Amino acid sequence: MWDPPFLPFCILLGCLGFVCVAFVSAWCQHWRGGFALDGSSQMFNWHPVLMVTGMVVLYGAAALVYRLPYTWSGPKLPWKVLHGTLALAAFVLAVLGLAAVFRFHNDHGTPNMYSLHSWLGLVTVLFFSCQWLAGFSAFLLPWAPAWLRALYKPVHVFFGSTILLLSVASCVSGINEKLFFSLKNGTTEYQHLPAEAVFANTLGLLLLLFGLLVLGALARPSWKRPDADSADSCQVPALRCRC
Amino acid sequence: MWDPPFLPFCILLGCLGFVCVAFVSAWCQHWRGGFALDGSSQMFNWHPVLMVTGMVVLYGAAALVYRLPYTWSGPKLPWKVLHGTLALAAFVLAVLGLAAVFRFHNDHGTPNMYSLHSWLGLVTVLFFSCQWLAGFSAFLLPWAPAWLRALYKPVHVFFGSTILLLSVASCVSGINEKLFFSLKNGTTEYQHLPAEAVFANTLGLLLLLFGLLVLGALARPSWKRPDADSADSCQVPALRCRC
Repeated sequence: MWDPPFLPFCILLGCLGFVCVAFVSAWCQHWRGGFALDGSSQMFNWHPVLMVTGMVVLYGAAALVYRLPYTWSGPKLPWKVLHGTLALAAFVLAVLGLAAVFRFHNDHGTPNMYSLHSWLGLVTVLFFSCQWLAGFSAFLLPWAPAWLRALYKPVHVFFGSTILLLSVASCVSGINEKLFFSLKNGTTEYQHLPAEAVFANTLGLLLLLFGLLVLGALARPSWKRPDADSADSCQVPALRCRC
Repeated sequence: MWDPPFLPFCILLGCLGFVCVAFVSAWCQHWRGGFALDGSSQMFNWHPVLMVTGMVVLYGAAALVYRLPYTWSGPKLPWKVLHGTLALAAFVLAVLGLAAVFRFHNDHGTPNMYSLHSWLGLVTVLFFSCQWLAGFSAFLLPWAPAWLRALYKPVHVFFGSTILLLSVASCVSGINEKLFFSLKNGTTEYQHLPAEAVFANTLGLLLLLFGLLVLGALARPSWKRPDADSADSCQVPALRCRC
């Protein structure tokens, strides 16, 4: 079976991630009035940009760290730190993105947390916070026992993909919802498919493509770290454990 | 690591699928006026019911056929036929679900195919039709060569999960969109979170849970058919091939 090399795929994926961030930024800048920090709709615009950048693109990058062939030899700790740091950066952006939408809602007297998009988004970020904390406790704290790491690792891997899937579903429902909110007047109603709608719909499909490619890369056996279930370097060099 | 048996999980999953179909039917019957075939909004109501039943629940059942331990011994052909038949039934329901929404839009002068939900839904059904046709041609036609089956199988497996993921994302964005459309008047606006909104949001989360459990079951190594990559019975008993 055709087995493409990981690095060119990774570069293409990086470009696609960059295009997603550029698309969501351009949408908010060009059609939605740009960015501000004053509780206005310009403040809301940080929400899609930060969620896409954090919960999809940076999160995807964090998930793929162990697929880089460079990470397969030598100590694993630096790559664990990179994985955790990228995930933490994604989490910080997500929290800032949530703060932007809550501030916008509160300043406009709009209730929070009523749409399915908001329920799903909050579930995703809550899962992510648990995942990060559990991952940090099990894989980065030097005193975590090897049996706990071995027990938790498949759960961490499964929820890693699950959270990305939930993130993409949240983004798609959010873009759909935002377009129904924004495109209301007679000349640009969503159902007349103005340029903004085509652009933002395309963004939704690009995000799905990005998410699917990351999930596909994670699932591909030949791209997995060969020693994934064998000896591994921990925080204490003398101790070799399965984690 | 804890390795739960497949059958109790499968029964639980079946109950969850039944609950999803019951929820979407109850939503449309109780809050959206029930069902009809006259191009009215009662005709639209077939759309969510048929898409959820076909593209999520029946599709999920089709995807899990080969995880049933009964299928691991004896000839594979009857199980292939069951897998293909369940998928075909899912596809027929999806096409009827699309027909319902197109008829409703056309009778009300509403444009088709403008929202991200509709783009994503159509992409999903198009992928599914290609997947079914390619699967039928490669795995059920007796003259398909073994090398083609071996080459195509991982692609079929990957797109099998992908299509379920796209289906669930389509359903979530569709439920969100429908609630914004339907809950407009002052007493029941979506943002005031009336009982209908809580009910339909819960349906969205249940569908996500169902999809994730199916994807998790598909990914679980110990639940895979042990001889998945070894000898297999084809249409012609004398011929043993990898498919």
